Amino acid sequence: MSWDAWLAEQRESRERAGLQRTLRPRAADEQVVDLASNDYLGFGTHPDVQRAASAAALSWGAGSGASRLVTGTTTLHAELEAEIADFTGRDSALVMSTGYHANLSAVTALADRDTLVVSDAHVHASLIDAARLSRATVEVVPHNEVDAVRAALAGAGGRRAIVLTESVYSVLGDAAPLSALAEVCADHGALLLVDEAHGLGVVGDGGRGLVAALDEAPQVVMTATLSKSLGAMGGAVLGSAALIDHLVNRARPFIFDTALAPAPAAGALAALRGLRDRPELPDVIHRRAAQLADRLGVARAAGAVLSVPMPSPQVALTAQAAARDAGVRVGCFRPPSVPDGVARLRITTQAGIGDDDWARAVEVLAGVVEQHRGEP
Amino acid sequence: MSWDAWLAEQRESRERAGLQRTLRPRAADEQVVDLASNDYLGFGTHPDVQRAASAAALSWGAGSGASRLVTGTTTLHAELEAEIADFTGRDSALVMSTGYHANLSAVTALADRDTLVVSDAHVHASLIDAARLSRATVEVVPHNEVDAVRAALAGAGGRRAIVLTESVYSVLGDAAPLSALAEVCADHGALLLVDEAHGLGVVGDGGRGLVAALDEAPQVVMTATLSKSLGAMGGAVLGSAALIDHLVNRARPFIFDTALAPAPAAGALAALRGLRDRPELPDVIHRRAAQLADRLGVARAAGAVLSVPMPSPQVALTAQAAARDAGVRVGCFRPPSVPDGVARLRITTQAGIGDDDWARAVEVLAGVVEQHRGEP
Ligand SMILES: Cc1ncc(COP(=O)(O)O)c(C=O)c1O
Ligand SMILES: Cc1ncc(COP(=O)(O)O)c(C=O)c1O
Repeated sequence: MSWDAWLAEQRESRERAGLQRTLRPRAADEQVVDLASNDYLGFGTHPDVQRAASAAALSWGAGSGASRLVTGTTTLHAELEAEIADFTGRDSALVMSTGYHANLSAVTALADRDTLVVSDAHVHASLIDAARLSRATVEVVPHNEVDAVRAALAGAGGRRAIVLTESVYSVLGDAAPLSALAEVCADHGALLLVDEAHGLGVVGDGGRGLVAALDEAPQVVMTATLSKSLGAMGGAVLGSAALIDHLVNRARPFIFDTALAPAPAAGALAALRGLRDRPELPDVIHRRAAQLADRLGVARAAGAVLSVPMPSPQVALTAQAAARDAGVRVGCFRPPSVPDGVARLRITTQAGIGDDDWARAVEVLAGVVEQHRGEP
Repeated sequence: MSWDAWLAEQRESRERAGLQRTLRPRAADEQVVDLASNDYLGFGTHPDVQRAASAAALSWGAGSGASRLVTGTTTLHAELEAEIADFTGRDSALVMSTGYHANLSAVTALADRDTLVVSDAHVHASLIDAARLSRATVEVVPHNEVDAVRAALAGAGGRRAIVLTESVYSVLGDAAPLSALAEVCADHGALLLVDEAHGLGVVGDGGRGLVAALDEAPQVVMTATLSKSLGAMGGAVLGSAALIDHLVNRARPFIFDTALAPAPAAGALAALRGLRDRPELPDVIHRRAAQLADRLGVARAAGAVLSVPMPSPQVALTAQAAARDAGVRVGCFRPPSVPDGVARLRITTQAGIGDDDWARAVEVLAGVVEQHRGEP
């Protein structure tokens, strides 16, 4: 088949399934309450964070110039690494361009053909791609089933093993049974990789995430993004100094990628400092998330993400549009972006918006969900 | 073997081979002539570019908030896409967080188990990873050998096929035989993917890259980075509207990644406009690159990258340190970051530095290369 014919055929099959997607640019001055963004604490538009990002572009330049090992490592990167490691209680950190790079880097630098990767069925695309790229044997276990992880590790047969999980899951918003997983991993000498993309800034003591609360567990590798509760862009891998040294030397998606630009690095650092100064900020998320879950009649979330199942992808889109018309943006996740095939509204609780806007958004969403939940 | 023991063993074997790497943060006010950065035109620190990046952080925020399909697409992204497509003569463009994401996205969205990927032996790590991740059958052909590409395509046996190349190669600095490759691909109905990371802003009419000079070839997929001659951060895939629509719907490293932050997007856009306004700028690179190549007695480069082979990784490091002590930073590439196993200095020609600094750097490098070339 020719490439043109193949592209056309692919598009037709998406359209038949109601799964065609298009990009819709938003304007800077748009009037909408945004409950789709992952900037849960509103740091991305906090004046201190914006000013820090803005100033970094002026003092350092628009880019970092080259990869971290060539000339792209600035003292700004080093500062950010020291502070994020300290905040989350890890020995060392390595900052990357994206959270996606962080997951690709961590897994591919550690796992190879002689490794067993045990992956929760709900982990993020970046972890799935990472495991695939590593060429390890991958065993996918049912979501949050610790016994299945134990059984998989028992079958590792002397291979080095890594277990992949998220602390708070990105789409369904539930938490992993982290202590139990850490225990099972310790029993089997396995590494536990915890993606704190939706945990950092949201859960744990002062927003430190869930890894920080584990008993000192040297066998935990933590990954994080700077693009969600820190309101900027970038990712990080955190763990022992030996782990970070290994990544610097072996992680291809780190080594062969231009360093994170100064503006988002400085923005993330300012947000981290803001979070340290205001440890009560994540509480706002939890209060609001509980209120919204109760009002919508869905299960309370572990973090900021509320998942509202819809009867079909089409209804989910209609519900999203109805909310948008009433001035509230929410996410609409359809296959293949959902781990269980169920289309849903994905609503993110925001601590950074005013009480009035929040109250209005809750009422809008209650109406929209009420109206669309039952429709086929 | 335990993870700790494995990490220690890996480190020891790196140290034995003289291939251990460490990060060295640089300060903002460092006094050095930087011939290691890929910011060939100096746009990263051009006042217009810095101001645009800085202003974007203030008007849009430090981050984009979510993935492009959720709420991360701003009118800034759309503008950048329109202008970079127009500048390079492509129908459409899709901006990503990094050039690495661009290559991963393009290849994995197009290739699957039923595809043949024909890859030049010297392509960048991101393309190698992309091909691996796609699960396609990968055939690696000797560097720049068009006949080998033809033979590989002749054996495709009806599978869709993609040929991977760079326009100007990142480490050795040589150019691909692009017209011949395009012809062979057209003969076989294969796609030609050209990574213009080191071509954009450097080669072709006014820095448009080498793809722009090909006869209108709808079967060409171009990828680029915003992190090199545009002085910022990010990547792009360029091609037909049908291709871009396909990527928006199918490229996991695009779909599941937070959008590029506003500051680097605005910086890249300002640099692109600067390049359009000053089409003679790339000529400075070519003049200086030729001068430096002649002075060092190495082959002239196709673009900005001069490759100077060194007798060993250790000597390469010593030579790099000697240049650094004399105030000139150059790159030192050792295995596994070189396609041919030969350690080398990688010197990037810079159009953005003053004549005096440039002249001094040429003399420093001539001395350093002279002194270290012969040493075992
Ligand atoms: C769980 C999880 N991990 C990793 C990522 C990737 O992070 P980034 O967007 O910074 O690339 C995301 C979101 O995009 C995520 O939800
Ligand atoms: C040829 C080539 N392609 C892709 C990339 C990746 O681009 P980025 O650094 O923007 O991720 C690079 C450099 O890093 C490169 O040299």
